[in-house]
Amino acid sequence: MIVILKENHDKRQLDNLIAWLKSMDINVHISEGIRQTVLGLIGDTSIVDADLIRALDIVEDVKLVQEPYKKANRKFHPQDTVVDVSGVKVGAGHFCIIAGPCSIESEEQICGIARSVKQAGAAMLRGGAFKPRTSPYAFQGLRANGIEMLLLAKKETGLPIVSEIMDISQLPLFEEVDLLQVGARNMQNFELLKELGTLDKPILLKRGLSSTIQELLMSAEYIMASGNENVILCERGIRTFETYTRNTLDISAIPLVKELSHLPVIVDPSHATGISRLVKPMSVAAAAAGADGLIIEVHNDPPHALCDGVQSITPAAFADLVANIKAILPNAHHY
Amino acid sequence: MIVILKENHDKRQLDNLIAWLKSMDINVHISEGIRQTVLGLIGDTSIVDADLIRALDIVEDVKLVQEPYKKANRKFHPQDTVVDVSGVKVGAGHFCIIAGPCSIESEEQICGIARSVKQAGAAMLRGGAFKPRTSPYAFQGLRANGIEMLLLAKKETGLPIVSEIMDISQLPLFEEVDLLQVGARNMQNFELLKELGTLDKPILLKRGLSSTIQELLMSAEYIMASGNENVILCERGIRTFETYTRNTLDISAIPLVKELSHLPVIVDPSHATGISRLVKPMSVAAAAAGADGLIIEVHNDPPHALCDGVQSITPAAFADLVANIKAILPNAHHY
Amino acid sequence: MIVILKENHDKRQLDNLIAWLKSMDINVHISEGIRQTVLGLIGDTSIVDADLIRALDIVEDVKLVQEPYKKANRKFHPQDTVVDVSGVKVGAGHFCIIAGPCSIESEEQICGIARSVKQAGAAMLRGGAFKPRTSPYAFQGLRANGIEMLLLAKKETGLPIVSEIMDISQLPLFEEVDLLQVGARNMQNFELLKELGTLDKPILLKRGLSSTIQELLMSAEYIMASGNENVILCERGIRTFETYTRNTLDISAIPLVKELSHLPVIVDPSHATGISRLVKPMSVAAAAAGADGLIIEVHNDPPHALCDGVQSITPAAFADLVANIKAILPNAHHY
Amino acid sequence: MIVILKENHDKRQLDNLIAWLKSMDINVHISEGIRQTVLGLIGDTSIVDADLIRALDIVEDVKLVQEPYKKANRKFHPQDTVVDVSGVKVGAGHFCIIAGPCSIESEEQICGIARSVKQAGAAMLRGGAFKPRTSPYAFQGLRANGIEMLLLAKKETGLPIVSEIMDISQLPLFEEVDLLQVGARNMQNFELLKELGTLDKPILLKRGLSSTIQELLMSAEYIMASGNENVILCERGIRTFETYTRNTLDISAIPLVKELSHLPVIVDPSHATGISRLVKPMSVAAAAAGADGLIIEVHNDPPHALCDGVQSITPAAFADLVANIKAILPNAHHY
Repeated sequence: MIVILKENHDKRQLDNLIAWLKSMDINVHISEGIRQTVLGLIGDTSIVDADLIRALDIVEDVKLVQEPYKKANRKFHPQDTVVDVSGVKVGAGHFCIIAGPCSIESEEQICGIARSVKQAGAAMLRGGAFKPRTSPYAFQGLRANGIEMLLLAKKETGLPIVSEIMDISQLPLFEEVDLLQVGARNMQNFELLKELGTLDKPILLKRGLSSTIQELLMSAEYIMASGNENVILCERGIRTFETYTRNTLDISAIPLVKELSHLPVIVDPSHATGISRLVKPMSVAAAAAGADGLIIEVHNDPPHALCDGVQSITPAAFADLVANIKAILPNAHHY
Repeated sequence: MIVILKENHDKRQLDNLIAWLKSMDINVHISEGIRQTVLGLIGDTSIVDADLIRALDIVEDVKLVQEPYKKANRKFHPQDTVVDVSGVKVGAGHFCIIAGPCSIESEEQICGIARSVKQAGAAMLRGGAFKPRTSPYAFQGLRANGIEMLLLAKKETGLPIVSEIMDISQLPLFEEVDLLQVGARNMQNFELLKELGTLDKPILLKRGLSSTIQELLMSAEYIMASGNENVILCERGIRTFETYTRNTLDISAIPLVKELSHLPVIVDPSHATGISRLVKPMSVAAAAAGADGLIIEVHNDPPHALCDGVQSITPAAFADLVANIKAILPNAHHY
Repeated sequence: MIVILKENHDKRQLDNLIAWLKSMDINVHISEGIRQTVLGLIGDTSIVDADLIRALDIVEDVKLVQEPYKKANRKFHPQDTVVDVSGVKVGAGHFCIIAGPCSIESEEQICGIARSVKQAGAAMLRGGAFKPRTSPYAFQGLRANGIEMLLLAKKETGLPIVSEIMDISQLPLFEEVDLLQVGARNMQNFELLKELGTLDKPILLKRGLSSTIQELLMSAEYIMASGNENVILCERGIRTFETYTRNTLDISAIPLVKELSHLPVIVDPSHATGISRLVKPMSVAAAAAGADGLIIEVHNDPPHALCDGVQSITPAAFADLVANIKAILPNAHHY
Repeated sequence: MIVILKENHDKRQLDNLIAWLKSMDINVHISEGIRQTVLGLIGDTSIVDADLIRALDIVEDVKLVQEPYKKANRKFHPQDTVVDVSGVKVGAGHFCIIAGPCSIESEEQICGIARSVKQAGAAMLRGGAFKPRTSPYAFQGLRANGIEMLLLAKKETGLPIVSEIMDISQLPLFEEVDLLQVGARNMQNFELLKELGTLDKPILLKRGLSSTIQELLMSAEYIMASGNENVILCERGIRTFETYTRNTLDISAIPLVKELSHLPVIVDPSHATGISRLVKPMSVAAAAAGADGLIIEVHNDPPHALCDGVQSITPAAFADLVANIKAILPNAHHY
């Protein structure tokens, strides 16, 4: 951490600051320039609150040298993490494709799609029971009933299942769900993250609509700091001024997150673009850029899907997509 | 709602669409152009799912003509709403200034600040007990103890109190809190919004970091649709590429929201800018643009505030700010 | 400037870097931490290319401590600059209102509006002859003929005139134009800026649609470094994800730019919002936040304006706006 | 084009509007709803100014049904355009890799890099002589001398050359340059675009830092409407709130632009990310998503490049990148 002092700062206040830092075992190197004096803080600066120092009278600015995340940081954990979801591995060369409908609509629908996507090469089944919808008047999901139908599809196909949890109070319903998804709108629901950190269950953490990569990693850190290190990150598009696509899929986040962190990164091209025709090219691009997997919206009857149908693809289109992925990833472990 | 059909669309599918719409009491007017056929949907289209229609094979695009919010919509409720917070009115000319520290740190601190801001002209006291912090290692608030201290400050000064609730499970602690704040990161925590909609207590709803005005109004609609119409909206800055300020305070949102909705709108210049020197000019600008109030971070010792000290102002600076606001708002009801 | 070295950096390369910096009269202070070594560069670092150093093998990152602009920087020029536009002063308490149509359409139109806005209190007349339109099929302005009509309006009313120049080759036509406007889309047309820097004429520089405040000041620096220090800055809205308004007027940029720079700052609420109903509240807010002036689109027949009519106001609405501005700025010098 | 009228609109004004539209050979279909009347405009609506209609007293909003670009529109030109740059084809399966330094520094440097990149598989050589730099104090390029050195490299290697033109006045220097680049900051320098539209020379048009896809296509339309249909589009990253990368490369723009337009699309991963380590994964991702080519910054001595060295790769890294591209594009025409 680097502290830039104001010109003509009070020397006594500076002594106080240095004494306080030393009391926390932080060493301070002072560089005096012509216009500017700069302090270099050395030691475990993760315990020093940069905002607090920035607020001091004598301080002009504070610059961080080290990342504020530790457990998610590749510097402290150089090898790739492999997350095991009920036997399906994700990360470190294990490429995992998750597929299924945005919303669970009926037992027939979810079981039918489950069979189709399993045959086409999906390793896990997704299905939404609790749906975060912008409008209170839109379909909110089948909730507890939806989870039950998803469990039937799991039983029938053997595929591990993924579903979004929206509130701590829903936890009892998710006991047999294999991978718990935290949606983009809840990426900074810190109370939920802390609770999920106490579980012995892998978590799929989606990047918020306007969250930076560092914020995504800090949210992962919340879960990991509470004890649960089985976190899979998901890039799903960020909000920009572009209006043709729903969001802008940040493909560069894939190699960047993998450089900064050891956690696996998968990509959701369906929600990112909101356009079914873009799902295949974006999937292939994500795989080419080094993603550890994909989560794809598949519906047996896209035009009648109860939500987000515009971005769904059919089981046939999904099978074609899987073939394309396999062609460009000959050396990855496919499920 | 306007539906634009693809060229060479299947006539039978069009007949099906029209029949389905008619079954919902929606009338359809057809305009056939040279390259494009356009359907005008007439009736209560708020029950029609635009995404579902957009997903149909024969449809190129859907354009909304009416806003998707009703209870928050000024068209259906032309007069300004006045929200009463334990006797303090907000809206329709009642200008309300809320002040207090970002975090409650001690009984002494919160009671001292409460006395100062009351004397300077604040109508309500704010204080954070549950703090949404990006880092799990940062101070998370005094939680239940903080609420107790805030209640002591309320008892001592008589000021109604405002505090942020982060999870449904915290509700029992907020029984004597007069105004419940939903933070920017929870603006789309729909389960929380629905629960708050069942209360008989006013809600302060902050705009999300990258939420549109329409999404803010839709989140208000969630609370109102569940039965609670006492909602105060709060503009607190949106995320842009500008890096000097923490966020960009969207002052134009004030007159715009007041045109679209009857709900009161207040402004948080402290969090929006993150710079204490900008709090006063932005407060005056917000009042000049028609805001119904302000929520200002005040700390008796800003450099040592446990969080967000950079943006706090002192009680003396707050008193000066209140004087400036009174000077440009001679005809508003000040508290 | 602060240089953060990589762990295990090559010592010989570090010696080379230090020697090279010393050859430019830059002193280097070294702080060695446990994981990180940091160099503090002391001296006139504005001549050191940060990108070049960032690219070195041994360097992890470079952090700037000083602003890269000098002539526009308030630190080197503490008192406010007053720009004199043919007798009309802007800055340091001189509040200046510029008004006129987006496009000059006819002699009758521009002279009529000129008389109206003069009477209502405008200090300068604006009128576009060269129009930057997104579509090649849209009206591109009356060009040379437009400038001639504008000069007639100047002659008739005595108002100094402002018009946008889009290319160096148009300079001869602007000889009698009092204030040359650089539009948002040309804010980083560096060849044009350098040429305008050689003139003895004030320049109105608009912030680019997605430019940071620092980039705006760097573009001003281009003009000033070429010799012309008569620059007025203009905030006109930045591009965000919000769709109700055309752009988001960044009111916080006003006090911030005035803190960083000594140049006057005016505001264009018409183009920023694109909505005529928002022009008055945003004008009043800008004045309240400390702006040095406004540039307002006024048209005698807004619904038939050849471009941007949606955001124009009538002369009567403009007179009302001026009265409101005067009411909140009793101590400013009004024109 | 769809026109939504205000409730209680004046019938006489509506008649006037319809009469005016009919005078332009536009037919009008009227749909009267309960709360809203909607007009469907049928005919060649590209000549109707939507902003003008939106400004009418009786109009609430105007929605566009057709894209405002014609010559760049795939609907009017279904087959892919192939642009021929002095014998090198781009588009319709012809994948083209352009490489070279950000800035030309010396004859030795540019000729050396030219030989290296030719050997590694580049089809064209890029080199900047005129450099758009944010700071007036940064290196501005060798200008006329730089172009001369670039021509020597062309002569020696036979590679067609690409260089950025920043102002109309520089045109005489570019006579022997094979492909003229319009930089991101000049994408809406409409006077320059019109002038380039009169040439018989291909143009490489880069997307602006915060331009939408539609604006990019409208800028291409400017060049094409002036007579020059040899336009190659370039995605080079857009400005977002993310700070790790310089910009966010919008890979989804590739399939989207190719759906909307017949023009070839290439990608610049070097400027988009600003990080040399991301150049290869982003190049491979772009190719996988359907790009028609790449423009890559290559420098024989990246740490000493006079500008943008952080994002340059070495000739050896470039050769490796080309091999990776060939591996995933076995059926494209490589140069």
